[in-house]
Order: sequence, then structure tokens, then C-alpha cells
Amino acid sequence: MSIKAVFFDIDNTLYDSATLTAMARKNSVLAMMDAGLDIPEDRILRDLAAIIEKHGPNYPRHYDELLKLYGKNDPKIIAAAIVAYEHTKHAYLKPFPGVVPTLMILRINYRLGVISNGLTIKQWEKLVGLRLHHFFEAVVTSEECGFEKPSSEIFKKALEVLKIKPPEAVMVGDKQDVDVRGARNAGLQWIWLHRGEAKNLNETSLFTEIPKILDGLE
Amino acid sequence: MSIKAVFFDIDNTLYDSATLTAMARKNSVLAMMDAGLDIPEDRILRDLAAIIEKHGPNYPRHYDELLKLYGKNDPKIIAAAIVAYEHTKHAYLKPFPGVVPTLMILRINYRLGVISNGLTIKQWEKLVGLRLHHFFEAVVTSEECGFEKPSSEIFKKALEVLKIKPPEAVMVGDKQDVDVRGARNAGLQWIWLHRGEAKNLNETSLFTEIPKILDGLE
Repeated sequence: MSIKAVFFDIDNTLYDSATLTAMARKNSVLAMMDAGLDIPEDRILRDLAAIIEKHGPNYPRHYDELLKLYGKNDPKIIAAAIVAYEHTKHAYLKPFPGVVPTLMILRINYRLGVISNGLTIKQWEKLVGLRLHHFFEAVVTSEECGFEKPSSEIFKKALEVLKIKPPEAVMVGDKQDVDVRGARNAGLQWIWLHRGEAKNLNETSLFTEIPKILDGLE
Repeated sequence: MSIKAVFFDIDNTLYDSATLTAMARKNSVLAMMDAGLDIPEDRILRDLAAIIEKHGPNYPRHYDELLKLYGKNDPKIIAAAIVAYEHTKHAYLKPFPGVVPTLMILRINYRLGVISNGLTIKQWEKLVGLRLHHFFEAVVTSEECGFEKPSSEIFKKALEVLKIKPPEAVMVGDKQDVDVRGARNAGLQWIWLHRGEAKNLNETSLFTEIPKILDGLE
């Protein structure tokens, strides 16, 4: 059965989410120190990481919680953190090298989609910020689906949108236990985009190799 | 009694809030059209203005309400609008020409503050985005005070923070009925920064003329 569609994860697949997050956190900490928070940088970073770990990435009051730890409630410091985080996000929200030309090549022969864990508007904001929102015919988020990867339900939902069967689709993602395992369980083909050394046909560290790998899968 | 402090309004006093808002709305409308909203630009702009008028500027779901008008609920279009608004805001959030050097001069002889109607964190985000947050010793917002300009209460609160008397302070703002009237009723001196022709000592269209006007008021 020939491949009709390719689905992508967003974070760390289409752009370097790990670097963005690390730099945005660091710059927000430096901005808080500049705005008067007299605590060592590494301690603030550690406390902030613990708060994000506890409340999840979409909690809107990370910085308020952080300042509470230090017995402070200073809107100047919170605003400095928010602005630094947003400016850094803006600077780092760029597609990985090769993503745009590769998607342009893939669009000739395949329908493209996104299967992503996260809040619908937040994930769409990333696609728009990356200027990739025109590439994808089907974008399915865990928030709108009600199930997260690796659940088969979210893969089924994406296949339904394009009216295709599991073996006609390939999932591309960076997480073996989420993207690869989920796709395999749902009957899709998969490409594991990982940062280490590629070991077999379905693995690569280069986005630009995806068209060649797809040729091999057909 | 000599002047000890100068208080400033933020929007349209320290930066061109009117142009920022107009451009951000326009770019958000163009981004929605680009993302698939097939409605004429001037009609979207009109409908958006009416929604903002109805719900106030700090309502978080303007674009959801707008799409509802057109029987749509498309996260791609909403995200496109939000991202375009934020990018445009980032580009236009700059102090008026002359603001930074003038504040640097004023800081030699006066203590500086801000008296602003709005949400505390949002107003601080503007000061941080403008990189003016280090200039002001006292920042009082209507949200934290519980009263809006022109109420005398918000001016009293700012005077309390600096422990000074009304005639020792000057309020600088663009709104005659809010900044000027409020300051006068609370017993402060005032400078009306307006866009038209300056008519007397207390009026100017140039931020850079403030030090000279203060000399005249003493």
C-alpha cells in the first residue's frame, strides 16, 4: 500500500524546542535579577524548573509562584521575566535547518499533517510563528482529540481527517516512546528523528533525509 | 514649594500606543485573511473594533468572539491573529523620540514615577518592553490602587509612596480629562502633552521640552 500522508510532531521535530526553552528560562532569570531579584542565578533556575515540573508547562503563574518562594510579590520582576521569555521565544522560534525546503518537496507527493500533544491554540501559535501553518492539511492536538500520543486514538483521529488507512501514513517525531511507539501501535509507519547516530532505515538525525527514507519505505 | 517628583502616564505619553494598536489590529486582520478568513478587511476591522469596545481591551477572547460572528471556530485563524498582534506590538513598542534622554536629564533633579490606568502586570510589561522600568521609583496602577485617574485617590497613593505633598509633584499626560483634570483636582501641578499646538506654559507637543517647562513651573 503506497504512502499518502506524512504526519509530524512539532516540538523538537520541526524546531529546536529544547534550546528555545532553555534560553527563554535563562533570559527570564537574568531579567528578574536585573529587575531586582537578589538570588543566585543557578538557584532561581533550579526553583523555576521545579515549579514548571510541578504545575506543567501551560500553567500561567510560574513566576508568581517563584517569587512567593522568596517572600516577594513584585510586578516589576514578574513583568521583566515575562517580557524576556517572550522576546527570547520570538528569537528562537525558527524551523530546524532544512525543514522548509524538505516540506516543500514532500508536498509534491504527500499530504502533510501534524499530530501534537498540547493545547490547540498554543500549538497553532507555534506553527504560525514558525510560518509553517500553510503546509499542513490536518493538524490534530491532544487537547481537541481528548487523547495524547502514544494513544492510538489521536493517530486514528488524524487518519480520519484525511480519510486514509494506517499503513498509508508515516509519523515523523523525536520521541521513541511517544511518536514511534504510538504510530506503530496504531498501525502507521514511522520515522524516528533522533539526535544520535542513525542505525536503520527508519531513523535519521537529519530532517532533509526524510524524502529518501520515504522512498525506501514504499 | 519646589518640585520634587514628576509622574508620567504611559500610553500615548511615553510611547505611541495609538499607532501600535492600529497597526497590531490591522496586521492581525491581514493574518486572519491569510489564514483563510474570507471576509473583507474593512468589515473585519469594524467588527473587531466593536468587540474590543464592548468587552474592553484586556478581554482575552476577542478573536474567538470575532470568528463566532462569522460562524467559524478555527484555531489556525485565531493563532494567526494572536501571533501577528504580538509581533506587531513587539515592533512598535518603542519610546517616543526624546523620551530616554529627557528622562535621563530629569532624573538628575527629580524623582520619577508612573500613574497609569490599567492592569498592573500589563502596564509593567509595557515599561519593561520599552526598557524604561529602571527609571521609575514609584509605579502606581489603577488595578492595585482600586481607583482610576482622574480620581484623586490614585494621585494620593503615588504621593504617599514618595512621601511628598501634592504641590511638590507634576503629572505629565496626554489626556486633558484624565491626567490634567485628575492632577489638578488632587492639588498636583501638571503638564499636558498634546498633539496639537501648545498654547500656554503647561502645554507641549514635545517630550523634550518638559525640563524647560518644569523650570518655568518652579
